[in-house]
Amino acid sequence: MALRLLEERNAIWLFDCGEATQHQILSTTIRPRKIEKIFITHLHGDHIFGLPGLLSSRSFQGGHEPLTVYGPVGIKRFVVTALQVSESRLSYPLHFVEIDHEGEVFNDGSFKVIAKKLDHKVACYGYRVVEKDHPGELQVAKLREMNIPSGPIYGQLKAGKTVTLDDGRILDGHDFICNPQKGRIVAILGDTRKTANAVTLAQDADVLVHESTFAKGEDKMAKNYYHSTSLQAAEIAKKAGAKRLLLNHISARYTGKAAYQLAYQVRDVFPNTRVVNDFDIIDIPFNK
Amino acid sequence: MALRLLEERNAIWLFDCGEATQHQILSTTIRPRKIEKIFITHLHGDHIFGLPGLLSSRSFQGGHEPLTVYGPVGIKRFVVTALQVSESRLSYPLHFVEIDHEGEVFNDGSFKVIAKKLDHKVACYGYRVVEKDHPGELQVAKLREMNIPSGPIYGQLKAGKTVTLDDGRILDGHDFICNPQKGRIVAILGDTRKTANAVTLAQDADVLVHESTFAKGEDKMAKNYYHSTSLQAAEIAKKAGAKRLLLNHISARYTGKAAYQLAYQVRDVFPNTRVVNDFDIIDIPFNK
Ligand SMILES: [Zn+2]
Ligand SMILES: [Zn+2]
Repeated sequence: MALRLLEERNAIWLFDCGEATQHQILSTTIRPRKIEKIFITHLHGDHIFGLPGLLSSRSFQGGHEPLTVYGPVGIKRFVVTALQVSESRLSYPLHFVEIDHEGEVFNDGSFKVIAKKLDHKVACYGYRVVEKDHPGELQVAKLREMNIPSGPIYGQLKAGKTVTLDDGRILDGHDFICNPQKGRIVAILGDTRKTANAVTLAQDADVLVHESTFAKGEDKMAKNYYHSTSLQAAEIAKKAGAKRLLLNHISARYTGKAAYQLAYQVRDVFPNTRVVNDFDIIDIPFNK
Repeated sequence: MALRLLEERNAIWLFDCGEATQHQILSTTIRPRKIEKIFITHLHGDHIFGLPGLLSSRSFQGGHEPLTVYGPVGIKRFVVTALQVSESRLSYPLHFVEIDHEGEVFNDGSFKVIAKKLDHKVACYGYRVVEKDHPGELQVAKLREMNIPSGPIYGQLKAGKTVTLDDGRILDGHDFICNPQKGRIVAILGDTRKTANAVTLAQDADVLVHESTFAKGEDKMAKNYYHSTSLQAAEIAKKAGAKRLLLNHISARYTGKAAYQLAYQVRDVFPNTRVVNDFDIIDIPFNK
């Protein structure tokens, strides 16, 4: 599962890295050197065994920018051992942030990432990625129409200040600033039973990615195997007020049409639901 | 690369285990629980990163028979760390034989396996698998024709003894035993420059599997990257008196027809040469 951060950032964040991820992304537009962060939800093999290979091939393909891996305690030992034993030397700095409690794991002012514990057989974290609100743009065309010459005044107006012009006119910056653009919120969860923390992570999210190993009605199996049903995922999305629900981690028992059925069967609870594969491309537009 | 030992053994031996091996064998007739031994030539990632996943899925698919991994020192640390961190518990006993010098690494009377050092960037071993000669069968039909009743006499004849019958006839066992069937020899090498040990490993082999990362004429690149050209592999096969040469580990620069060309271009040196993919099925008949 990859999150492509466009605009100024031009970077990819990966979530989990199962075996053969390095081969799968060959058929996508993802370039390994663009991968800036990898968030691991938990240490089960199908979520981490592709990591050493991906990190090596990123090096082989000429990646030089640093990369950070976030994940439960143990992820560093696994990766470092694999790279050591295979004598793989990376062409870029590799950092680890091992997570042993809930909270903010990253914040650079434009994005922050919050981790919360899910309910799986082993320690498992879900991630909430929050984009900072974009301040409203200055309505330059409107100012030009009013014959207000560009210059330092524009900056003051953009900052919301009140300005007196040489000709005596008084302008309030707020009248010339568009509404700020709400930052987007994406919640990407790992393997989990239905759990309250999923609602917290997905609160008002533009997109919630939730596992649906099992189908509606298979609650007992889901509980026994520490997974969720499609209906449970839909209930989480509804309760959280999320805008879209993407179901992933579908059991191998459901293939082709049967897999997509997992979304159809819960649309009465949460209409905006669909099943996704690991490298489907999903646009997340700004809210108008 | 898998070796299927048919007849009494009904087992699979794997040689190296790159990422996604567990997925690749899904489209073959290989059942993970039939894999009895895995021989690792060296610890480069593309030869070992599929091992933890394969071992886990063998367990998941109900394997109970023991499995032994042979390979250079370090293979145990890699596998054990990966299984520990991912909390994978195996349903079968897993053994390791770490190799730090040349010699016999396995011998159960019917098969023996000899390891010898190759010339690669990291410690790398090639393997020679030698099947025991099968003793000649007793020609029962011939005995029946001569009206010799079955009984302990048959065992004595099979053992090559001379027997006097009640009617005075004297029979020499050797006259009733087929020629013994020579055991087969398969040499499977890992990544290597052209090296004398490859000839030793492949001496009189029915099949030599030799890497051919590079094409005939690319000797300099081959040397720089610790690999071989197709011509070097053919020269090894010829010098060793091998019967067939299978080229593998072809560079990604050669795909499709260009890859097969690597075999054609050396058939004047060693006619019985072909390029193989990891899970091609190659029959190795007994010698008549
Ligand atoms: Zn899991
Ligand atoms: Zn190698």
